Amino acid sequence: MTNPPTPVSLRVKPGPSRLAVTGIGNAMLDIITQDSHEVFHQLGLTKAAMSLIQEDQLQTFYNAMGPTIQMSGGSVANSIAGVAALGGTCGYIGKVAADEFGERFTHDLRSMGVELDLAIAKSDEGATGRCHVFITDDAQRTMATYLGASNQLHIDDVKEALIARSEITYVEGYLFDLPPAKEAIRKVVNFAHEHDSMVALSLSDMFCVDRHRRDFLELVTNDVDVLLSNETEILSLFQVGSLEQAFSALEELGMLAVVTRGARGADVATVSGVVSVPAHEVEHVVDQNGAGDMFASGFLYGLALGADPVEAAELGSLCAGEIITHLGARPESDLEEMAINAGLL
Amino acid sequence: MTNPPTPVSLRVKPGPSRLAVTGIGNAMLDIITQDSHEVFHQLGLTKAAMSLIQEDQLQTFYNAMGPTIQMSGGSVANSIAGVAALGGTCGYIGKVAADEFGERFTHDLRSMGVELDLAIAKSDEGATGRCHVFITDDAQRTMATYLGASNQLHIDDVKEALIARSEITYVEGYLFDLPPAKEAIRKVVNFAHEHDSMVALSLSDMFCVDRHRRDFLELVTNDVDVLLSNETEILSLFQVGSLEQAFSALEELGMLAVVTRGARGADVATVSGVVSVPAHEVEHVVDQNGAGDMFASGFLYGLALGADPVEAAELGSLCAGEIITHLGARPESDLEEMAINAGLL
Repeated sequence: MTNPPTPVSLRVKPGPSRLAVTGIGNAMLDIITQDSHEVFHQLGLTKAAMSLIQEDQLQTFYNAMGPTIQMSGGSVANSIAGVAALGGTCGYIGKVAADEFGERFTHDLRSMGVELDLAIAKSDEGATGRCHVFITDDAQRTMATYLGASNQLHIDDVKEALIARSEITYVEGYLFDLPPAKEAIRKVVNFAHEHDSMVALSLSDMFCVDRHRRDFLELVTNDVDVLLSNETEILSLFQVGSLEQAFSALEELGMLAVVTRGARGADVATVSGVVSVPAHEVEHVVDQNGAGDMFASGFLYGLALGADPVEAAELGSLCAGEIITHLGARPESDLEEMAINAGLL
Repeated sequence: MTNPPTPVSLRVKPGPSRLAVTGIGNAMLDIITQDSHEVFHQLGLTKAAMSLIQEDQLQTFYNAMGPTIQMSGGSVANSIAGVAALGGTCGYIGKVAADEFGERFTHDLRSMGVELDLAIAKSDEGATGRCHVFITDDAQRTMATYLGASNQLHIDDVKEALIARSEITYVEGYLFDLPPAKEAIRKVVNFAHEHDSMVALSLSDMFCVDRHRRDFLELVTNDVDVLLSNETEILSLFQVGSLEQAFSALEELGMLAVVTRGARGADVATVSGVVSVPAHEVEHVVDQNGAGDMFASGFLYGLALGADPVEAAELGSLCAGEIITHLGARPESDLEEMAINAGLL
């Protein structure tokens, strides 16, 4: 019998002026519909993937959807909301437009106590980003994303203040999808290095990785301390056919990485090998949307508190388990209480 | 042993030009938050009740809320969405403003195939109605409603077309809250009588009943064929202390009525006595918001298809059971399939 692990809460929490995690990503509203009849096919979308759409397609896509539920989204923003729901201090950097969607996005993070550094888009930089999410009966989500203002994040929009106070700076891979954001990412990473903030990167989407493999590999090799991905993303990054090969590549880079694997849990790759952490058991999976984002919440918050990576992954699993039981990618339950009850905080 | 009841689907469905149910009510968007800390007290709201707020209070209420989920609402509109989700043909009459909220409300019903007769408010008639919903850990909902355009439903806004084609015309009690709607209700009821459409009335809320008891009693006595309420509403209507007394009053009126009783199911009062129908069993109740509305969907759709009231109430229980397992008052599952699997359609 082994001793139970020390609850993370017994370790040193970041002080009040410190932040556990600051995220930087695409600020988005999610427009979610139950799509039992897979109407998304008629819109030319690839099932379970994220496709990009333009401003002039917004009305067509909305009209084709059934009744919708709307809530804040954005992959890394979801993760930050998760950290806040766990009781963590956190920050978020992104860009919205001065419209109703931008107001809602701002409200939702601010009301959770997240410190915001949101740039406001000029009138020619598009409306606030939004993601049309089609949930099918198999709990898969197919997405059509209008990036809009979110991806007009210029280098001048990135401020040092939040990053300088953060244990971890979490960067969204989707940001690579427009050129101005690449320079901004460079600036973020430089700030993080200056202030000893760990750099965590989400690979976001296999097609996104495919579009920007060289940029991703360069960043991963030189700047990233923690890599978060799912199976298809990591295989795409290294262009390999098996997880074993991917883990070898990660080992060569000497990098901490976690690969989420849906119902099969998550694999944590450290310098001392790969450890599998089981998925949190759930009665009925409604919507897998946000499972990766919430895993990141628990995993990164755990690391920020000084937990070892496997413990941090257990906290990640717990958070992912909550999000898949309901529609939407923002937590509906008190994650902090759940984690305390599970002995993980 | 008794024979199993004939599934409702074996009976005559309304033809394509006929509608099972047309609803008339307050067109609303719901802005929903999980309120574990019962912040609503600070806003002066009464727990589990509906309070009315004015346009100049909107920003204060929104600012006080945590992260929100937004979706269409409105009590009778929810019921109509439920009938549509059961596969029924239906219509809706109400009033919205020409704003983003009104557009979403319209989209959500139209995308379910509901035929709409929505009046558009003039610029001095307020914005589209919205309801701020605070969900507490005990699954109760506390509401702050801005009626706005929804309750500027004038007599000229009510058209005959949908009512003339409907088996049942379903009227929302909340409509009594502004004088212009009273005349509109009168017109609706007259159209229904002319076209042999059954008149169903929802008592909506005990405080609403209290505000307009005389109007309600007059309508119930002279015009209503089917009365839908919960316990507190029916006790308030007849100003009696027990359900038995309320049922006596209903018997005197010779009226078909159903009283929903939360976890204790529903009581159906007909001329031949009162029958209790159990609540549908549910693993975990998340949000009781919409339970009464969805009960009405099944109950009224069943009646429209010619089911007897007790069978119709069983269909109502099934629908109510779905809605309480998730946030929000619009169905997330295929109610028609659920009802067919349960042998109720």
